[in-house]
Amino acid sequence: MKMRIVVIGANAAGAKAASKAKRINPKADITLIDRGSFISYGACGIPYFVSDTVADVKALMSTPVGVVRDAHFFNKVKGVIVKTHTEVMSIDRDSRVVHLLESTTGVGFSLEYDRLILATGSSPYIPQISKVDLGNILSVKSIEDAELLKNCAISGDTACIVGGGLIGLETAEALQQKGMRVTVIEMRDQVLPGVLDPEMASLVEKHLRQKGVTVMTSCTVTGFKGSTTVEAVCIGDRELPAGLVVLAPGVTPNIGLARAAGLDIGTSGAIAVDARLCTNDPNIYACGDCCETTHLITGKKVHIPLGSTANKQGRVAGINAAGGEATFPGVLGTSILRVFSINAGKTGLTESEARANGFDVETVISPAHDKAHFFPGAKPIVLKLIADRKTGRLLGLQAVGEGAVDKRLDAAATAITFQATAEQLSQIDLAYAPPYSAAMDNLIVAADILKNKLSGHARGISPQEVKRKFDEDDDFILLDVRSPAEHGEIGIEGAKLIPLGMLREKLEELPRDKEIITFCKISLRGYEAQKILDAAGFENTKFMDGGILAWPYSLRGAL
Amino acid sequence: MKMRIVVIGANAAGAKAASKAKRINPKADITLIDRGSFISYGACGIPYFVSDTVADVKALMSTPVGVVRDAHFFNKVKGVIVKTHTEVMSIDRDSRVVHLLESTTGVGFSLEYDRLILATGSSPYIPQISKVDLGNILSVKSIEDAELLKNCAISGDTACIVGGGLIGLETAEALQQKGMRVTVIEMRDQVLPGVLDPEMASLVEKHLRQKGVTVMTSCTVTGFKGSTTVEAVCIGDRELPAGLVVLAPGVTPNIGLARAAGLDIGTSGAIAVDARLCTNDPNIYACGDCCETTHLITGKKVHIPLGSTANKQGRVAGINAAGGEATFPGVLGTSILRVFSINAGKTGLTESEARANGFDVETVISPAHDKAHFFPGAKPIVLKLIADRKTGRLLGLQAVGEGAVDKRLDAAATAITFQATAEQLSQIDLAYAPPYSAAMDNLIVAADILKNKLSGHARGISPQEVKRKFDEDDDFILLDVRSPAEHGEIGIEGAKLIPLGMLREKLEELPRDKEIITFCKISLRGYEAQKILDAAGFENTKFMDGGILAWPYSLRGAL
Repeated sequence: MKMRIVVIGANAAGAKAASKAKRINPKADITLIDRGSFISYGACGIPYFVSDTVADVKALMSTPVGVVRDAHFFNKVKGVIVKTHTEVMSIDRDSRVVHLLESTTGVGFSLEYDRLILATGSSPYIPQISKVDLGNILSVKSIEDAELLKNCAISGDTACIVGGGLIGLETAEALQQKGMRVTVIEMRDQVLPGVLDPEMASLVEKHLRQKGVTVMTSCTVTGFKGSTTVEAVCIGDRELPAGLVVLAPGVTPNIGLARAAGLDIGTSGAIAVDARLCTNDPNIYACGDCCETTHLITGKKVHIPLGSTANKQGRVAGINAAGGEATFPGVLGTSILRVFSINAGKTGLTESEARANGFDVETVISPAHDKAHFFPGAKPIVLKLIADRKTGRLLGLQAVGEGAVDKRLDAAATAITFQATAEQLSQIDLAYAPPYSAAMDNLIVAADILKNKLSGHARGISPQEVKRKFDEDDDFILLDVRSPAEHGEIGIEGAKLIPLGMLREKLEELPRDKEIITFCKISLRGYEAQKILDAAGFENTKFMDGGILAWPYSLRGAL
Repeated sequence: MKMRIVVIGANAAGAKAASKAKRINPKADITLIDRGSFISYGACGIPYFVSDTVADVKALMSTPVGVVRDAHFFNKVKGVIVKTHTEVMSIDRDSRVVHLLESTTGVGFSLEYDRLILATGSSPYIPQISKVDLGNILSVKSIEDAELLKNCAISGDTACIVGGGLIGLETAEALQQKGMRVTVIEMRDQVLPGVLDPEMASLVEKHLRQKGVTVMTSCTVTGFKGSTTVEAVCIGDRELPAGLVVLAPGVTPNIGLARAAGLDIGTSGAIAVDARLCTNDPNIYACGDCCETTHLITGKKVHIPLGSTANKQGRVAGINAAGGEATFPGVLGTSILRVFSINAGKTGLTESEARANGFDVETVISPAHDKAHFFPGAKPIVLKLIADRKTGRLLGLQAVGEGAVDKRLDAAATAITFQATAEQLSQIDLAYAPPYSAAMDNLIVAADILKNKLSGHARGISPQEVKRKFDEDDDFILLDVRSPAEHGEIGIEGAKLIPLGMLREKLEELPRDKEIITFCKISLRGYEAQKILDAAGFENTKFMDGGILAWPYSLRGAL
């Protein structure tokens, strides 16, 4: 008898699983079920549709050659039967039957399966606060959301985004491009928590503010005001007028069906699966946003829903359900976003995640151009590279800047997957020509500095720590070793200037009993200065990580 | 006593070695010798200076903050003594002395060393052919070359580039941008030999021709004509008028000094060194373009001079000479260039290199967009991924296209460094958001197709092989499974159309006794069609690798 495979959820993971299962087992009967009317769409593209960057919503649902991936397409091209507007009411695991309801007609029916694939996805988390049901309080998940949001985005009006994560910031930009005045409200003390460490997030916040977005951190939205549509956002006693609110505080996996069927739910709150993406029922697989996965560095179970992961997992679940053999090893939590003209992302662990997982970490902040500095269009990128002090093994990379950060993240993600050390990363034969990188790519430079730090040759101190020293009136010298011209243009209040080229001659200007912290634009000269002072017998010297480009606080002379 | 380190050659490798040695051993006396007047310049930037992309030649010799890296800079900032216009006449290894000649004054002198670092670089290979010494026959290596070339680039005049490698093509673009009519003459039967396999090189050649450059392959320049300056290039009996000739047939390592001193020269023709970059004299190191290195895949000694490698090696030689401990593991031969609006490069072995090294290879050609296809500015890139059939281990990646190929090369270089298999590459958690890639990055797609091929699920055939079948009147069916609209717009002469969505219904139109080769735009649908035919019992089916986007021959309907 033909194998019958039922796939619940027809977006990235489900659509991929169904198509792959059919290719592996062309004789199988494969049915793809979805409660919505649109299937297999690029949900990640929604902010770009809202901002009119993508003109036609159909583009999000089409193949690269412009064919709409609808039920007809899946039937004709993929050989998969699609049932939209169909809600799964329950799963009877003993009889291997799913009970369904056709939502437009109200007709119930059942489907027998040999293998079931759950790709039920995730839903925006809706905080249970006062008047959250008012009109114009929206989330960003479905095509319907996208169209609604676009209609509600009225130029000149005020929008509040609840949540400063990836989707929140992408939506902030989209609404601002539609002419709205946008405020981002984040509960945590920084934007992009879980993606960036605070000093890297500061660079993004600075950029958002420069672009006119109001960023409020450490603020918890407690409710909303309005009669039928939202009029204000409440933050305790404060009220912020808002004609449109986007809820983007995160997503939760859709596990109701799985839980009701008695399938195991993991510690992360998502459906538990093994490396073959099999649940505790050998006939049921799960993939995409609804299931958990393994973090490749910590080995812990995590729920990090992403379109890229969903596609990879869909392939694995489809192969296994169809009788093949495939595994999904896990993720590094790689994330990236573009917001206005800045790119920001991470792979692996942030410094705070690494510390929370018990690692003794060394870090480096390295700003540089993304191309040869003399090449037109070269733009700055700031990298933060994190390693385990004990083994030298890389734990994570964060990257923020107007330049190409994605390339560095991908190389680092690959290196971390193979448990590379800083030494190994520094020797990789990356592609070099002036339009693509400096002869020493910033990733190589960051790895080299990390090696210098791990070996004790270089001693860094974070901008945060320097700021704290100023705030606490510590007795130390912050030594600017840039040129007088650079120093004149922009600087850090309280710093003393001795250009690097003069340092060897002017050592007597510096006290030997005080801590001296050197810096320059990016801190290569700062490191050079530290080495000169070390050689001259100064005993308490450091350089400030990332130099003035990574200094997230106010600058003398800055706009 | 202070350690004395002498470094011969003050460009990328030498300058880096001297600076690093000083940081490692601040008490050492370090002298950096160069016969030229300019030091530490970005030779890779020369074509961009010629084309006026980089306006001021000083930019090539400056730090990212605009400080010129001259003798004064190295002395003041790096603590290194620099002697320019100084030729090394000989090395007396027994007494550890170098004999020098100050070329402007003619004064000879000597320097004792404890450690010597050779960073003598490479020189353009000058073919010993008739009248190669005529005026306006130039090469591209030094700042002086750059200025001369720029002065000779007269708009409307004709330039011939001898050599279709990286430097040749970059210079071709530069001269064309200066208004010259440019011909590239390459001895081998393709441009970029050693970088790209023929079908990938065809894509670059096509682009060059579209941009108005004449490309002549399989042509050997036998001499030149002219009285004082060049007037024509001779290719056997043919004469090509040319007012300017650029010799770019490759470079040779500068080993004269090393050979005269009795140092070992390796099989590649460059100075032999161990992993610490030490020559057979324990007091002499070599780094950069003058020395050979190890290919990380084949384990063979190779001479692949590149600015990125020179910098890494300079660091290692500097550390070791100064008493530290560092090694340079080797290279993957990663290369990249931008020519006009196309990017092209490779890492690891090409298919032909892999076969020549005895590997049984499987390959895949995968064209796709570099960003989400719906994202504005998404551009095509064609990847060719090569693996060892026996182990599934990746051997190389080539990438050509208007989109971001460098990112895919860097991730692949990293993966290959760690001996990744196609399976491992396909699972890497690369950074995904619509501005950066499709949810399935083309690199992941290519790895997935490679897995399908290695497991026997997918059977590909190269465009070359299909072309050969047409040329030899083979009895086969080339089946276009694109839409009628796509088929109408552009196509391959002789192909039969059955859109993928109709294929399951129109199987009776296809003979069961003939070979059927399917294709689409990029061959994902082609592969899908192969699977449909397989499932329907067709026994001789393949899909054409890379589809119409990778077809380098003439197309019906193409401009």
